[in-house]
Amino acid sequence: MDALDIDAVDEADLDEPVLIEGLPGVGHVGKLAADHILEELEAETTLVRRIYSQEFPPQVSVDGGVTSLTCASVHAVTPETGRDMLVLTGDHQAQTNEGHYVLTDAFLDVAESFDVSELYALGGVPTGELIDEYAVLGAVNNESMLEDLEDIGVEFRDDEPAGGIVGVSGLLLGLGERRSIDATCLMGETSGYLVDPMSARAVLEILEERLEIDLEYESLDERAEEMKDVMGKIQEMENQQQSMEVPSDDDLRYIG
Amino acid sequence: MDALDIDAVDEADLDEPVLIEGLPGVGHVGKLAADHILEELEAETTLVRRIYSQEFPPQVSVDGGVTSLTCASVHAVTPETGRDMLVLTGDHQAQTNEGHYVLTDAFLDVAESFDVSELYALGGVPTGELIDEYAVLGAVNNESMLEDLEDIGVEFRDDEPAGGIVGVSGLLLGLGERRSIDATCLMGETSGYLVDPMSARAVLEILEERLEIDLEYESLDERAEEMKDVMGKIQEMENQQQSMEVPSDDDLRYIG
Amino acid sequence: MDALDIDAVDEADLDEPVLIEGLPGVGHVGKLAADHILEELEAETTLVRRIYSQEFPPQVSVDGGVTSLTCASVHAVTPETGRDMLVLTGDHQAQTNEGHYVLTDAFLDVAESFDVSELYALGGVPTGELIDEYAVLGAVNNESMLEDLEDIGVEFRDDEPAGGIVGVSGLLLGLGERRSIDATCLMGETSGYLVDPMSARAVLEILEERLEIDLEYESLDERAEEMKDVMGKIQEMENQQQSMEVPSDDDLRYIG
Amino acid sequence: MDALDIDAVDEADLDEPVLIEGLPGVGHVGKLAADHILEELEAETTLVRRIYSQEFPPQVSVDGGVTSLTCASVHAVTPETGRDMLVLTGDHQAQTNEGHYVLTDAFLDVAESFDVSELYALGGVPTGELIDEYAVLGAVNNESMLEDLEDIGVEFRDDEPAGGIVGVSGLLLGLGERRSIDATCLMGETSGYLVDPMSARAVLEILEERLEIDLEYESLDERAEEMKDVMGKIQEMENQQQSMEVPSDDDLRYIG
Repeated sequence: MDALDIDAVDEADLDEPVLIEGLPGVGHVGKLAADHILEELEAETTLVRRIYSQEFPPQVSVDGGVTSLTCASVHAVTPETGRDMLVLTGDHQAQTNEGHYVLTDAFLDVAESFDVSELYALGGVPTGELIDEYAVLGAVNNESMLEDLEDIGVEFRDDEPAGGIVGVSGLLLGLGERRSIDATCLMGETSGYLVDPMSARAVLEILEERLEIDLEYESLDERAEEMKDVMGKIQEMENQQQSMEVPSDDDLRYIG
Repeated sequence: MDALDIDAVDEADLDEPVLIEGLPGVGHVGKLAADHILEELEAETTLVRRIYSQEFPPQVSVDGGVTSLTCASVHAVTPETGRDMLVLTGDHQAQTNEGHYVLTDAFLDVAESFDVSELYALGGVPTGELIDEYAVLGAVNNESMLEDLEDIGVEFRDDEPAGGIVGVSGLLLGLGERRSIDATCLMGETSGYLVDPMSARAVLEILEERLEIDLEYESLDERAEEMKDVMGKIQEMENQQQSMEVPSDDDLRYIG
Repeated sequence: MDALDIDAVDEADLDEPVLIEGLPGVGHVGKLAADHILEELEAETTLVRRIYSQEFPPQVSVDGGVTSLTCASVHAVTPETGRDMLVLTGDHQAQTNEGHYVLTDAFLDVAESFDVSELYALGGVPTGELIDEYAVLGAVNNESMLEDLEDIGVEFRDDEPAGGIVGVSGLLLGLGERRSIDATCLMGETSGYLVDPMSARAVLEILEERLEIDLEYESLDERAEEMKDVMGKIQEMENQQQSMEVPSDDDLRYIG
Repeated sequence: MDALDIDAVDEADLDEPVLIEGLPGVGHVGKLAADHILEELEAETTLVRRIYSQEFPPQVSVDGGVTSLTCASVHAVTPETGRDMLVLTGDHQAQTNEGHYVLTDAFLDVAESFDVSELYALGGVPTGELIDEYAVLGAVNNESMLEDLEDIGVEFRDDEPAGGIVGVSGLLLGLGERRSIDATCLMGETSGYLVDPMSARAVLEILEERLEIDLEYESLDERAEEMKDVMGKIQEMENQQQSMEVPSDDDLRYIG
């Protein structure tokens, strides 16, 4: 294998597609959202590219005794209503700083080969508290996009996210700008304690409006119900412990 | 030295050989098993390749005052009965994520130069408990191999090993698939506390059946006897301490 | 993006310019000083280069919802009195040892493209104590410069800084010497507990004399006043705790 | 600067020279020994090469306010009696595993450019105890050298050093063998607690006999006297604490 291999699994004829990125991260919000699009629009979906790289962890996953080499996948989605999409998902992020640059450039190469000029990086932003109303924070690499996004409910706050946006989502905006791709990061608020299907739904509802697509949420809502039990237990613990501090990065444990 | 050097020490004429990998890992199961094949079939064995790499730790071993540079070795084995083999062993793994990819590709290059189209990665899977009956878990990179392996006693379990297979063994399956090499990982259950000759024997007995080779186990059984004393002491400690937690990776200390 | 990209944002016609470096470091002294030059001489300042690199952390900063990819910036400054300057600033250092070499070489390439033959690396040196009189320590890569710098108040001490000068500031002197660029490191003494505008002023006053430029200090003094409140609280704590040890690198927390 | 730069500072006409390596390590034994040769034979010594590399830490040392970029140095020594030598010294080791390979290859390139076919890597081996009689352990990359070295007092023990020889010293033997250079590692026993001039002297006395050179030891003995005071204090502590465990790598603190 070369340091980076892009396998062309299939081709698709797309009309001005947007790239949607949903790799693992805070609350698995981005990954849940991207996976949900692929599930709901399965009939209109084709796997088109697999990206293998020495920047991924050196491992295979095992499903029913059969292994798969770690990779990122790009699916082409042509929904009946709304914009065509390329959806980028995977189980792993790059393992080094440099690796984030290398992989993001590879992802943008794939996007450009499908004439993508607009992309959405999906993720979560941790609040350290359990959440009732799920706001969606935004960041854009082109100021002219701010107003339209605010009109459909995306919140832009002065100093958030503090410390900027790290990893592939951040670099898709930063390196995307250098390629003249309009890029938006949509970050669902999430406690940071749990895999958060409700936060993923909040992000997807923004995306539905933005791309004029239609999604059902039954499966995501079911998963949210399962999470509520876990949340209930956490709140009990919270009440008992009186005060509960915001977890550090190392403390975050996702329960899926 | 280049970043990677493959020294052709000797040549061998092999008939449809399989590659057997046994590098250090959990319980040293894979390494014990590979070393045992080389010992038992010493008369039919030739050292054919040495692989040096900057991905190995920067050190020499010392034996009787004479040094040897860290490397991996490939021996050709032509047993009287059963399949010809290339046996890959060594004292070290790569030191970085990227290094695992680089070395595995080098190992597969060597394998292909001998027309290998089938390989077996040997290792251990930690259970955290002392073991009475040694099961052998399997994983394959080609679903069509499952049934034959189950027939000879290999167990395939739904979610095991949890977290997939990491390192050279995992990548031999993952990168092997990309080269159309049928690859199987055979993992002997082992406590994880000790070098485990009994687990190595369990793995080798599967391999004997699969490759129709014949092995004696006297030396391995002797080593297992030595280990039993150590195990006895651990069980005493276990009784005294009442409960004994599964050790973390850092806690694992092999006693050989 | 390539591993390193130097964007030519604009050009400037400079007369024997000196390079001033002020990246983040101890007490943020260097960065405060460089930023202050750019603020005070804003009317005579042009952004000329942006340096992007995979050696920087993989992230964007967010300001009012709009992202900027991590980079270092070089501004050309042509003050009414005194030497022309190239001022190098940024929010991040390289993330690896090798990265410091790569970035410093890139910075020197930019400097040489503007015919720079003299440079000043600005920084802080931690004392572990709150400071009344801010001395400025110096180091040069060409012994012939020592006397002139001593004459304007720079202190050269036998064994300071102990352990040498690490990172971009150190390499600007070391790699600068290999390119025949006369380089000076000016290090303001600072407690190491706080962002230290007074230490930055001490460094700038040396630079004013050396380059015959004129700077006002109102904004820096205001910031120093804000810091005094914080210092007051630290001294209270110091009195209460009786003895306060010199903080380790990990303990240093800058409050800006 | 390139990733690795070898500066030819001067040339020297050497007759079958041997390479002597003395970089920092356990007890600073190797570095003390190499520096001592350069001091004692200063009149017959010429600095011939400086090796700069991105594998070294990114820093300059400061002496009297004047900086020097981290590098390794090679001096040519043509003593009145005995073998000509190239002496390799420096203040730093490589910072990564791969860096040890890269630098060792560079050192061997320099050695070969002077027609070196024999080398001595000097170092210390920690015993964890204060030492009365300083044995010198050996390791060779060519079995034929064992007997001659044993005859002049070098000890070869079956399993020492346990874990092999790590870093540049080990690789000089391992990579040297691949270039057909006869290489010997001479390791003076040392407690591991202190910079150990007596251990360096023990190593040098072996080298004197081997290379038929003559060295005085006044300066090294003086330094040893200074160390005795420190040792005295350690022994007092030892008596007070009754039992003193062997220090881990992290606990080793050299006092120079």
